Amino acid sequence: MSRYINEKLSTLDAYVPGEQPKDAEYIKLNTNESPYPPHPSVYEAVRKQAGFLNLYSDPESKELTEKVAENYNLEYENLLMTNGSDEILAFAFAAYGGGRKRFVFPSVTYGFYPVFAGLFGVKYEEKPPREDFSINADDYCGVNANVVIANPNAPTGLTLSIGEIEKIAATNKKYVVIIDEAYVDFGGESALGLINKYGNLLVTRTFSKSFSLAGGRLGFGAGSRELIADLKKVKYSFNPYNVNRMTAAAGVAAMDNWDYYANNCLKIAEIRDKYKRKFRELGFFVTDSKANFLFVSHEKISGEELYSRLREKGILIRHFDKNPIENFNRITVGLEEQMEILYKETEKIIRES
Amino acid sequence: MSRYINEKLSTLDAYVPGEQPKDAEYIKLNTNESPYPPHPSVYEAVRKQAGFLNLYSDPESKELTEKVAENYNLEYENLLMTNGSDEILAFAFAAYGGGRKRFVFPSVTYGFYPVFAGLFGVKYEEKPPREDFSINADDYCGVNANVVIANPNAPTGLTLSIGEIEKIAATNKKYVVIIDEAYVDFGGESALGLINKYGNLLVTRTFSKSFSLAGGRLGFGAGSRELIADLKKVKYSFNPYNVNRMTAAAGVAAMDNWDYYANNCLKIAEIRDKYKRKFRELGFFVTDSKANFLFVSHEKISGEELYSRLREKGILIRHFDKNPIENFNRITVGLEEQMEILYKETEKIIRES
Repeated sequence: MSRYINEKLSTLDAYVPGEQPKDAEYIKLNTNESPYPPHPSVYEAVRKQAGFLNLYSDPESKELTEKVAENYNLEYENLLMTNGSDEILAFAFAAYGGGRKRFVFPSVTYGFYPVFAGLFGVKYEEKPPREDFSINADDYCGVNANVVIANPNAPTGLTLSIGEIEKIAATNKKYVVIIDEAYVDFGGESALGLINKYGNLLVTRTFSKSFSLAGGRLGFGAGSRELIADLKKVKYSFNPYNVNRMTAAAGVAAMDNWDYYANNCLKIAEIRDKYKRKFRELGFFVTDSKANFLFVSHEKISGEELYSRLREKGILIRHFDKNPIENFNRITVGLEEQMEILYKETEKIIRES
Repeated sequence: MSRYINEKLSTLDAYVPGEQPKDAEYIKLNTNESPYPPHPSVYEAVRKQAGFLNLYSDPESKELTEKVAENYNLEYENLLMTNGSDEILAFAFAAYGGGRKRFVFPSVTYGFYPVFAGLFGVKYEEKPPREDFSINADDYCGVNANVVIANPNAPTGLTLSIGEIEKIAATNKKYVVIIDEAYVDFGGESALGLINKYGNLLVTRTFSKSFSLAGGRLGFGAGSRELIADLKKVKYSFNPYNVNRMTAAAGVAAMDNWDYYANNCLKIAEIRDKYKRKFRELGFFVTDSKANFLFVSHEKISGEELYSRLREKGILIRHFDKNPIENFNRITVGLEEQMEILYKETEKIIRES
């Protein structure tokens, strides 16, 4: 850090993404990527755009936005495309936080929320979940603050019902309620259908998980026209061409092959549920995850040790060194073959513990 | 705008990018794009990455950063890759502005600087240029503030010498001096060689112009290790995967074909200088631009009218409706064939005026 940096940034702890080691080939179950490649039509869409890269991308991402609107049965003006859903979340913290405008979110959730708050100088309050890590919706009703909740939540995979989301939106009408649906396609209930009823409801989505585009960086926000107008203002004050030509084309091709991705999500959910059972049979505590990952702990071995022992075997999972989840690991649901190797190695480790 | 937006954003005027009309085909000389497509190897590099889009991009952009370091004779730790140079500029305003840490920049320059300042709540002062639009380096010496100067400047194309840049960096040692070199490859002198001498000097670059990648969104910052560490902190607090796989691969392929792009820049500079002369012969005031655009005005016709008349003829140039340049237009240097059409149409318009 330099002596030139401002006070706000000097005390900020940045987000730490999952490790991407280059020392060896790993079975990578640590960053919630899809094990399935993009649909073949994405390749051609991307290559075609390569010839036009000397020209700026459309700052409105018009074609993509229209496709998304069509597929999700929303209006064009309800949508804003971004460089991953991290960017739309950052825009929302920039637009709605600051001064007396606080944010409230769970203490066990996506680790980026407090970082966004720090970056934009936004005050926040973290609400602890119940002992089983479930979120008590009542904790977020009438809090007189902006709320952000991941549904399904990360890293637990636990969900709130649409009724609970609706209650939170309805009781915080002077503030924005953000539902981060990064993992919703694997089994959660989406709040997209509520955005026309609640003008303060912003739903964020990513193409990284269910649409196999983690390396393409595409996400979007959906909300009332007024909210989207706010967020567009942030976008046009930060990076008007935030979505490049290739990414926009990949997104269009993904939307055009919806069934391929929907089927992948079904397969991932099946594999998840199968290994949820198998890990429980091994004595693991496993939350009832509806996402593309499992959240697990075991009495016989610390989270840190399980992580390290699997890493030695060439399997990467994600360990969080943070109270109260320091004994847990998050395991991305991979291909059945990968999960079976993980399972067998884990079984050996538990037997030896 | 919604009633939820915070005070800072509610009064902010966002940046307005150059128009991208879809009503007809235009000769597009309004957004400083390269008229040359990317090198053919970019196509294959991009297509190859399409197969790996289900996996996150490397948040460090290691391969690309190494290539850039090699080509510019810099160390890896002196560099940070971003989603266009707009993003590295935004990161710098976020890191170095705020509180009593002001920014100073010319009143006639890239219109995004005051917008970044507004977004991050940074106070700023604009220094008017001389009557001929040149920047007086002395205005920026010892100002006890962060400084950002585009060199060549936009939309004038005028340059400062390296000696002048050095004086500005040397006399503001407690603050950061940012040199925005978006257009340097068309004829300016780069300050990259000074970053090891001045720990407070940040040079920003884009692949949008000279590397024909406007639609790919790639830029970078170069500075001391300490400055780059600051900016990385902002990146990891905003969007760790800001550069996607395809863009990174396109950047690597561009670096591997340096001569193709260097030759394009030479051709663009030749065409620029030819039409600089021809427009002067038509009675235009034309600045001595070293960038890939001309900045022109004519006593016989207002800037607005010339813009409109050319638009009717299917030629787009950029008009700025801002004092003291409301009578000027910025014309991107296109292919010789395009410039000749522009010239002939302009000649007719002037003759009729």
